[in-house]
Amino acid sequence: MCPGRQTDQGTSFGGKALASLRSGNLLIGQSGGATAVINASLVGAVEAALNDTRIKGVYGMHYGIAGLLNEDLLDLRQQPDTLWPQLLYTPSAALGSCRYKLKEQDIEKALTIFRRYDIRYLLYIGGNDSADTAHRLALAARKSNYELYAISIPKTIDNDLPFTDHSPGYGSAARFLATATQDSTMNTLSMPSHYPVKIIETMGRNAGWLAASSALGKHDESDAPHIILIPEQTFRAERFLAQVEEAYRRYGYVVVVASEALRDEQGQALGASGQVGVDAFQHPLLSGTAQALVELVKQELHLRARFDKPGDFQRMSSRYASPVDRQEAYLVGQEAVKAALRGENDKMITLVRHDEPTYHCSTGLVDLKNVANVQHLIPETYFDAHNAMVTPAFYTYAQPLIGEPLTRYPRVDTTKVITL
Amino acid sequence: MCPGRQTDQGTSFGGKALASLRSGNLLIGQSGGATAVINASLVGAVEAALNDTRIKGVYGMHYGIAGLLNEDLLDLRQQPDTLWPQLLYTPSAALGSCRYKLKEQDIEKALTIFRRYDIRYLLYIGGNDSADTAHRLALAARKSNYELYAISIPKTIDNDLPFTDHSPGYGSAARFLATATQDSTMNTLSMPSHYPVKIIETMGRNAGWLAASSALGKHDESDAPHIILIPEQTFRAERFLAQVEEAYRRYGYVVVVASEALRDEQGQALGASGQVGVDAFQHPLLSGTAQALVELVKQELHLRARFDKPGDFQRMSSRYASPVDRQEAYLVGQEAVKAALRGENDKMITLVRHDEPTYHCSTGLVDLKNVANVQHLIPETYFDAHNAMVTPAFYTYAQPLIGEPLTRYPRVDTTKVITL
Repeated sequence: MCPGRQTDQGTSFGGKALASLRSGNLLIGQSGGATAVINASLVGAVEAALNDTRIKGVYGMHYGIAGLLNEDLLDLRQQPDTLWPQLLYTPSAALGSCRYKLKEQDIEKALTIFRRYDIRYLLYIGGNDSADTAHRLALAARKSNYELYAISIPKTIDNDLPFTDHSPGYGSAARFLATATQDSTMNTLSMPSHYPVKIIETMGRNAGWLAASSALGKHDESDAPHIILIPEQTFRAERFLAQVEEAYRRYGYVVVVASEALRDEQGQALGASGQVGVDAFQHPLLSGTAQALVELVKQELHLRARFDKPGDFQRMSSRYASPVDRQEAYLVGQEAVKAALRGENDKMITLVRHDEPTYHCSTGLVDLKNVANVQHLIPETYFDAHNAMVTPAFYTYAQPLIGEPLTRYPRVDTTKVITL
Repeated sequence: MCPGRQTDQGTSFGGKALASLRSGNLLIGQSGGATAVINASLVGAVEAALNDTRIKGVYGMHYGIAGLLNEDLLDLRQQPDTLWPQLLYTPSAALGSCRYKLKEQDIEKALTIFRRYDIRYLLYIGGNDSADTAHRLALAARKSNYELYAISIPKTIDNDLPFTDHSPGYGSAARFLATATQDSTMNTLSMPSHYPVKIIETMGRNAGWLAASSALGKHDESDAPHIILIPEQTFRAERFLAQVEEAYRRYGYVVVVASEALRDEQGQALGASGQVGVDAFQHPLLSGTAQALVELVKQELHLRARFDKPGDFQRMSSRYASPVDRQEAYLVGQEAVKAALRGENDKMITLVRHDEPTYHCSTGLVDLKNVANVQHLIPETYFDAHNAMVTPAFYTYAQPLIGEPLTRYPRVDTTKVITL
């Protein structure tokens, strides 16, 4: 882990004295791509807010900051009590989400709405862009002497937020991808000669954390995946093909896990280049990374190949959610309310890892200005670029996040043969 | 259900008298695409065989009939006792599978091997092609007066085997697809404006049972999927686009589930036609059905669209397996051994549905000559071609096969808004 992550700021809260905090309404929103556990953060925050007398109204942005700007606000105190425990196990963003970058004129409008609705506590669940949104609103409020406590709650399957050990949402997507890679590989193993090369395309446009997580069910070198392609590494077709050939020679089949965005030496995205074709209107055909890799393997190595692309399943799978991830998502939601009520402002909740006596996380805080628009990519200690594979240090880091380790499926002992 | 399926042949076994059955070795193989529960059939058969004194050796074909022809036979009595209960929950074909069409000279060779290894009971787990293989071997044995009892055990996620109410393997893939469609749709719902059109590509080259199963989590017209495209129906781009537009107008988003193989009026496969492009070597680019539909929607309707392609996950998902499916897969395995030991030959085990007092299945038998190479497609009563949607009769048929019904995820009540 990067040393910067280790600071437990949980004991150093230096907010305003409680007595002087203005009571008012709390507004919470969900932003960016949804996850299997983003609702757990919502539930954690809402349950904490509903039970605190200093908070009057508990409001939800309908479709994130875009909903705020449209004054489309939901009354969360009027939801049935039974909703919250159910949402804890419901994937996706129950309030609705958005991908919207605040314009300058939006900020003034948002402040006007805060005043109109007496919003004093602002919680925004999201990734880097959402941290930027919360930061800009906090700055604007301070500048115009409007008392607002803005806290960002981390969330992203991409795991690319800085200053937090990891991001809620990642553990569940990682558990899905590790299990799905194990399961899908079982099909290849049943008939390696049929489609000896399988490509699995994961999300992750800039960071390879998701692709890397596919290895969490890999127990030895011969297990899948055999090659992991991450966006942090330049894609070199020749090297890739040599690696596929080598794995095929050794194991008789090859499973490749590839991030959705890979770039070659020229910075050209794989699957978006002219080599892949043009459509009837001469638009370049965006076949996607997996399809491009399949074509490459077929054309250059003459091996049968096909791909799986779980797409939104990897961020939404309710059945594969990591219990650890869900619990931590709930925790950061609760802590956000507590921090705001302690007078913290313009901060993001972080997860701080402890390994003694066993893995667990406490929370910390980091200034939003340090978070916004910064991406935390896979460090070199976690990825062996030469072998296109994660390192043992990555397992140490990521294994606890998915909960119970994935065991290997049992196999028939094929040395017990019949001889006459 | 088609009337032909209703005949319960469970009471009409007319095999040879038990006393005269020749004792010998049993050989079992797995064939074709694996499923989440094909091992349950193996376990059912092996457990029945291990416990019967009339069966001496219990042998497994390593990689199906291809393994037989290579005399690559596994000794299943030498596997640890602990293996079988574990395999019950292990996806894929534990013995290894194959897709191999018997040549004439193979049949003579297979008979020679049967004689050499004293194989008297032949069980082959698979779909239509595998039934054909078992049938041809049974015929050849009879012709050369070799006493052999050959029973086929049904298996296919495609659910296209005739004379059985359904095929083991289908219920689990259906449960996966219905759940995955629900989960993936939750992501679209969180931000409909981002990617309002989602395409989910399922397996099923000739039969639409898998695509149809995606609707088993749909509770009313507004729920996803909104359009199901099956190979039994000619693909008409204009009609499809009109349906997408209509659903988008009504619901603000559209989820389309498409079988991997769709053909237009000219019999041209979608995603394989010239319109999709050619690669650097002028090979037609096989972009796949989902990619072709995405391009169509983007170009013609100017709506953002993307696709999920679960691929092998849908046949392999251990966590989504239907308990009913697993239990039935085990049952047909057990019944195959019992049938062979009653002297039945050249037959496939079928599942016979009973709805009283509640859904359950008994088994029957059908002559392999009636099964081999016949495909059972979705009947018109199960699919409303005009609306590209399954009918209520399909729900009645398919719902019990996936086990517990899928409930709708809870939603925030968005009528409870804040007004000043």
